[in-house]
Amino acid sequence: MGTKRDNIVRPINPASFHAVETGSREHIPGCLSIDFSVAVVLPAGGSGERTGLSTPKQFCTFLNRPLISYTIQAFERIAWIENIVVVVAKNSIDLMVKVVQQFGHKKVKVVLGGSTRHRSIFNGLKAFEEREEDSALKKPKVVIIHDAVRPFVEEDFLLKIAIAAKQQGASGAIRPLVSTVIATTSEGYLDHSLERAKYRASEMPQGFLYDTIYQAYVQCSEADFEFGTECLHLVLQYCGTNARLIEGPHTLWKVTYKQDLFAAESIIKETLAQTACVVTGLCEESTRLAGALQKTLGTQDMHVEIVPTKLRSSSTFISTNWNFIHVTVNSACLADLEELVKTFEETAHSVLYSVVLILVHLDVSEQPSASETMAALGGIRNLAAEAKRRNILLYGILLNHVKDAEQWEEAVENLSQIIASLIKERNPVLTGQLLWA
Amino acid sequence: MGTKRDNIVRPINPASFHAVETGSREHIPGCLSIDFSVAVVLPAGGSGERTGLSTPKQFCTFLNRPLISYTIQAFERIAWIENIVVVVAKNSIDLMVKVVQQFGHKKVKVVLGGSTRHRSIFNGLKAFEEREEDSALKKPKVVIIHDAVRPFVEEDFLLKIAIAAKQQGASGAIRPLVSTVIATTSEGYLDHSLERAKYRASEMPQGFLYDTIYQAYVQCSEADFEFGTECLHLVLQYCGTNARLIEGPHTLWKVTYKQDLFAAESIIKETLAQTACVVTGLCEESTRLAGALQKTLGTQDMHVEIVPTKLRSSSTFISTNWNFIHVTVNSACLADLEELVKTFEETAHSVLYSVVLILVHLDVSEQPSASETMAALGGIRNLAAEAKRRNILLYGILLNHVKDAEQWEEAVENLSQIIASLIKERNPVLTGQLLWA
Repeated sequence: MGTKRDNIVRPINPASFHAVETGSREHIPGCLSIDFSVAVVLPAGGSGERTGLSTPKQFCTFLNRPLISYTIQAFERIAWIENIVVVVAKNSIDLMVKVVQQFGHKKVKVVLGGSTRHRSIFNGLKAFEEREEDSALKKPKVVIIHDAVRPFVEEDFLLKIAIAAKQQGASGAIRPLVSTVIATTSEGYLDHSLERAKYRASEMPQGFLYDTIYQAYVQCSEADFEFGTECLHLVLQYCGTNARLIEGPHTLWKVTYKQDLFAAESIIKETLAQTACVVTGLCEESTRLAGALQKTLGTQDMHVEIVPTKLRSSSTFISTNWNFIHVTVNSACLADLEELVKTFEETAHSVLYSVVLILVHLDVSEQPSASETMAALGGIRNLAAEAKRRNILLYGILLNHVKDAEQWEEAVENLSQIIASLIKERNPVLTGQLLWA
Repeated sequence: MGTKRDNIVRPINPASFHAVETGSREHIPGCLSIDFSVAVVLPAGGSGERTGLSTPKQFCTFLNRPLISYTIQAFERIAWIENIVVVVAKNSIDLMVKVVQQFGHKKVKVVLGGSTRHRSIFNGLKAFEEREEDSALKKPKVVIIHDAVRPFVEEDFLLKIAIAAKQQGASGAIRPLVSTVIATTSEGYLDHSLERAKYRASEMPQGFLYDTIYQAYVQCSEADFEFGTECLHLVLQYCGTNARLIEGPHTLWKVTYKQDLFAAESIIKETLAQTACVVTGLCEESTRLAGALQKTLGTQDMHVEIVPTKLRSSSTFISTNWNFIHVTVNSACLADLEELVKTFEETAHSVLYSVVLILVHLDVSEQPSASETMAALGGIRNLAAEAKRRNILLYGILLNHVKDAEQWEEAVENLSQIIASLIKERNPVLTGQLLWA
């Protein structure tokens, strides 16, 4: 799929999937920091019937992690967001608590939901009212309400929502309508169609002054709790607060059907594949190959850094990358890989996203022997099995050095295609294999 | 991603991606065949700005084929659809003609579009009016209008649309609204929200009596041509025809953004991975392994058939499968594979979808020698490169026979995981590799 190159800075965090539309990443002048408290309520009580899956969609996993954890992480990485209240149905509480522990979410409080979406949101808001001694929650100035199944929300858009909510009392994301909206007769015939330009789809996130939305819920009727869908409508009706509407990027879309889960997985994979780090040691041949790879992978939209020293001492590279290519001419290199795996384990780097680790073994001997090399590297299988338990995907690629310049170029091109493909697919089944470039 | 097993018959054609919602596949009693003529108009003139891609989205390719060809194929495979008029912008005509040739579309006529969607549709309709001697188009009773970027439309739903159009003059697909629809003030504030239950999203396909929609276009105003979006509205206004609205499956969704292209690709891949054919020859060990694979792949939702004879004489298996596993104990097996590749070439089987061909070499010797096997099978690389040019993806897997029952079971489980993964990913970069199970 040929994608247009974007000029934006590549994200460190895969949760920040960038909208490609122009204008969506503009900054609000003078508003780069927030001087009031902001918390989030994430209603996650849905049953997910529409995906056709047996698991509620917020708990469907891809790349070993449930959707809800990606959404939580999208908020948790933002410094000015203090707390995230996740509201879940009774039979999902245990699962949710386990997810919070497993993926190390620090800002989350899990709260029991109600029988409808509005009751769940109100329960989430009430969590800030409880004056328990041990409660880490304090009432925020602004509360952002979001869907658990919209994982790709970005900081700059949340900033706009939070600031507009502080200024106007309420704010919400809108999008142009994708389809024409029509009114139907009770017999199933067309009554009339709406003029598309006058209407918008109301999306999430929405922001509110905490006191405003809380008061709206205190005053609203049973019918609102039972049948209402729109928080913006409640603050208008009960508090006279007219929400500021802000056009959001299309990446705010709601994961509703099975095809959306596929799309979300592909987006995360694509984002994880934007950067890689080549570790070479100080060997001349490895360094030269690394340079060639940097160039060829660059043409495939991947930004590659070369680390000449041992990775262990380069914690910056570890913390900002999810793909590592270890280039070596030494067939006794498995010990180095083992050390790398340990480093990832110690830094807990692979908790949120799988780490891809590719050994590239360059055979520079005059008469390369496949069987000798394979015997020397046979241990990669056990090491890969061990690493996989830590969410680290280890693959090996063998490459014979050839003197002919054209052949060598072709071999490097082939190698970089295999590397790019392993990084993009993140296939756990093929770990421990030795491939030939 | 854990998907719920569905009870429906597995599709032979990957274009028939089944909706999982209940009710969407019910049959209309007594209406299983159509006794009037039906043609299709596919406006495909959009520029695809919303995907953020440089190619208009209907020409974006996945699995080596542009989106528009999948949509065409969804109609072409239906016997009662006679013609498909594809309307494209001037600068896409050559590309479209090339696509029609390359993928062997037989029912398509390419027509030049107009400056707006309505003008393009009208141009498409006018193609049936031209009384050229050499024209294969004859005016149909019913015309179905669809979007080029909704590739997963199914026969049973098209049947409902065509029959309702014949009976009522017009019919259209609707879907429940995913988001609340709101009216905005000109200053960007909330004006009011619509009651979600009263409205529907108008989707495609739509069906019309040909004469009705044609007359509507003949009578409609310049403003309709310029700003209108809804054909159903035109036939209501100009012909007094009130369209019958039919709820469609969610799979009708419109490929609009980049994430939708990802989703469409994943759906096609998943559908292609539902069946496989294991070719064993008459050897006892191969047959036994094939039986074990049938069982383990079955637990991964793949339906496996075993073909004990040579595949060449089993044209049924060839025409209904896109995945073949050749199990052998003979290391001189590349000639068989070469023959298979030739068969696919002769039958043009890989024109629409890539064919996955996996060699599983079972080493039953007392002392398996990796280097000998690899030397014998080294030629797979060249064969794979050759096959790839014909859209056939060839991979090799090596498996040593072990006597211990538990170890053997584990090896077979591992083998079937690799097979399932190769079939699901359809990765062209890894063809020609020899993997170890």
